[in-house]
Amino acid sequence: MTGAYLRRIDRSNGAINAYLHVDVEGALEQARASDERRAQGRAHHPLDGIPFGIKDNIAVAGMPLTVGMQVRRGRIADEDAYCVTKLRRAGAVILGKLHLHEAALGADSDNPWYGRCHNPHRTGYTPGGSSGGSAAALAAHLCALSLGSDSMGSVRIPAAYCGVVGLKPSAARVSQRGLVTASRRLDHVGPMARNVTDLAAVFQQISGVDAFDPMSRSVPLAHTERARERLRIGVLADAAGHGVDAEVVACFERSVAALQPMFPRWQRVSFADVDFGAARRAGLLLCEAEMNLVHAQDLAEHPELFSPSLRKMLGFAATRSAIDLVAAANLLDEAVLKARRVFADVDVLLTPTTPQPAFAFGTATPANQADLTSFANFAGVPALSLPMGANADGLPLGLQLLGPIGSDLQLMALGEQIEAALGYSAHPQVQ
Amino acid sequence: MTGAYLRRIDRSNGAINAYLHVDVEGALEQARASDERRAQGRAHHPLDGIPFGIKDNIAVAGMPLTVGMQVRRGRIADEDAYCVTKLRRAGAVILGKLHLHEAALGADSDNPWYGRCHNPHRTGYTPGGSSGGSAAALAAHLCALSLGSDSMGSVRIPAAYCGVVGLKPSAARVSQRGLVTASRRLDHVGPMARNVTDLAAVFQQISGVDAFDPMSRSVPLAHTERARERLRIGVLADAAGHGVDAEVVACFERSVAALQPMFPRWQRVSFADVDFGAARRAGLLLCEAEMNLVHAQDLAEHPELFSPSLRKMLGFAATRSAIDLVAAANLLDEAVLKARRVFADVDVLLTPTTPQPAFAFGTATPANQADLTSFANFAGVPALSLPMGANADGLPLGLQLLGPIGSDLQLMALGEQIEAALGYSAHPQVQ
Repeated sequence: MTGAYLRRIDRSNGAINAYLHVDVEGALEQARASDERRAQGRAHHPLDGIPFGIKDNIAVAGMPLTVGMQVRRGRIADEDAYCVTKLRRAGAVILGKLHLHEAALGADSDNPWYGRCHNPHRTGYTPGGSSGGSAAALAAHLCALSLGSDSMGSVRIPAAYCGVVGLKPSAARVSQRGLVTASRRLDHVGPMARNVTDLAAVFQQISGVDAFDPMSRSVPLAHTERARERLRIGVLADAAGHGVDAEVVACFERSVAALQPMFPRWQRVSFADVDFGAARRAGLLLCEAEMNLVHAQDLAEHPELFSPSLRKMLGFAATRSAIDLVAAANLLDEAVLKARRVFADVDVLLTPTTPQPAFAFGTATPANQADLTSFANFAGVPALSLPMGANADGLPLGLQLLGPIGSDLQLMALGEQIEAALGYSAHPQVQ
Repeated sequence: MTGAYLRRIDRSNGAINAYLHVDVEGALEQARASDERRAQGRAHHPLDGIPFGIKDNIAVAGMPLTVGMQVRRGRIADEDAYCVTKLRRAGAVILGKLHLHEAALGADSDNPWYGRCHNPHRTGYTPGGSSGGSAAALAAHLCALSLGSDSMGSVRIPAAYCGVVGLKPSAARVSQRGLVTASRRLDHVGPMARNVTDLAAVFQQISGVDAFDPMSRSVPLAHTERARERLRIGVLADAAGHGVDAEVVACFERSVAALQPMFPRWQRVSFADVDFGAARRAGLLLCEAEMNLVHAQDLAEHPELFSPSLRKMLGFAATRSAIDLVAAANLLDEAVLKARRVFADVDVLLTPTTPQPAFAFGTATPANQADLTSFANFAGVPALSLPMGANADGLPLGLQLLGPIGSDLQLMALGEQIEAALGYSAHPQVQ
């Protein structure tokens, strides 16, 4: 399997630019070891021998860790991230490091230093971001599974744009050790896959309490496991009023209508009390402020190796006071309370993942691109994106499922049913 | 019981100044109702009819909520705090509102607007703070039980100085709704009592998940319940090196020696890797920054009604950047990791509560006063202070017990045994 993926990478990565680094020899060696284990009937785990791509802000020992930043070009990680350690323990094969938006702060993957990563569904279009490479590599069959990271939607936005699935887990459930931080509060390592079943397998393998990650802790399981006929499904009310494109609203409502016969208990859930714009600015400030610390030395020594837009965002945080930051964090706490109100009434909430489909490079990134995804980061709740169909142009659209904290597995169990019911597969032709 | 407490308040509060407000009529009416319930054999709870004093930064409907601030003089709360609601539900009697350090930011209870609260063990000496009134009222038998709040040690420091007991619960276990915030991360409502048994009863009554407090959540119980002979007891190493006074070190070591026969498994725990001074400054910055928001309008309209020292502290936060605040929060995360290392090796950690005993008003407050207590706020772990003896001058000294997150009840069970073994009762003569 690894050989076939490496051949496809060799053939297609030039056009798509999903990989920033491929470890051909290492991958082949891991694959041989796995084949041997399998031949002897002692495979470690169902993921033994499965080839992964890893977003290039997650440390893999001996491989680059650029975070898509020019100043970090050539820097090599000396230790595996916790999640990578867990994958290796399962016998997974690490193919290489995947493209991302510069510093993982932005969502079009139009990287001024490492080039554009293209959407496999349409060259010249964004795969979304910041985990653009992690979604593009899956859609183009350049890996079997991948890891991304998600601070305001960076796993789910590219999953939606590329027609694959991605999970932002409950806060504290997957260790962030070895992830280059954007914001300790908002960051989440998240699995990405071509179907929800695979996604759940990766999630289970990388979950766990890590004593060395201050944000990691035991998360009590949400008690929302209910028979299908008792499951209370919430549906985002007034998507158009929240700036969702008409074609996305139409696809979303068609999907809801298609699912309605499966689940008798439905209700609309209003987000009229949420100021998405203010929350977005607050979330960005948390990331920008923390990234000033994370990249302090590089920024001081080589500001010219930061793109003007990244420099501007980081510089903005330097002009905000400690009091502004508390105000931002407190505003995000409102999402915690909103989520509790929502999940007192429903067991799962459906929304479009993004307000629009993938757009052409050179077009302005829609300001509200992450508004529907970032709510889950602010609230700490798990959120899953899976394909719900395509727009008239054939570009994939994502359906987002949110549940209460700790309901990750239930959410994916439901996601499998919805995936089967919608029957939409968005994978472009494998070349 | 309420009548007797009210008579003592009438007699002694003038000298001690533990109460800022006493609700004689309300208390008598609640007491009558409780007597009636008890007479009919339908008392709500063991706390039914028990008279409480409440720190004046915790809302009691219809009573003042000054937070010890001049600008808030005369402001009346219109709703009970969550913890007060829980006490009322148990049938507790609320006697009134207790003295505190101005804005709960400081620990000598020398309040420029509401006067000094005196230590019942020695007039002219601090009762500690910020919950000075909550400890002094207990020591002087002006209430049976009290509530305080603790952001860096504000329950445990006055408990130690006044010879009573106090608990800072595990983070997230007691709702902060209705507490005037200093820092959402560091604040904890905590019970105070004259013995650990009573303390545990109050803790159990006020604990619980509050959907309306963003910081409140279900806290998994720590699995440290062990037979006494298997309990691993840690003891702070090199207390003197951390600036603890010689007389406090001596009393601490005597207490440890006295307890040694009860528990076979002991070890010293080093805190040489903790920079208490840097952590203290970080914790203060979190409070100061957040308090600028909480008191924004008052500060803008009536800066002259803030003491110069409080104004200076709040003003300092306004000069710090958002990046500084992230650095401070990240530094406090180091305490989370340190606590995990400590409680991997021991089930409970013993330290002196404070590096020194109560001091005379007019003396400079020791800079390291809260260093041994604030660690628990930073780490989120529960911490209990109980009397361990007195110095040569007869001033009480506190022993602090810390355990892993979720071990509150085990900590108090152990505290009861230690209290009995040490046999030190520090209550001054009731007048």
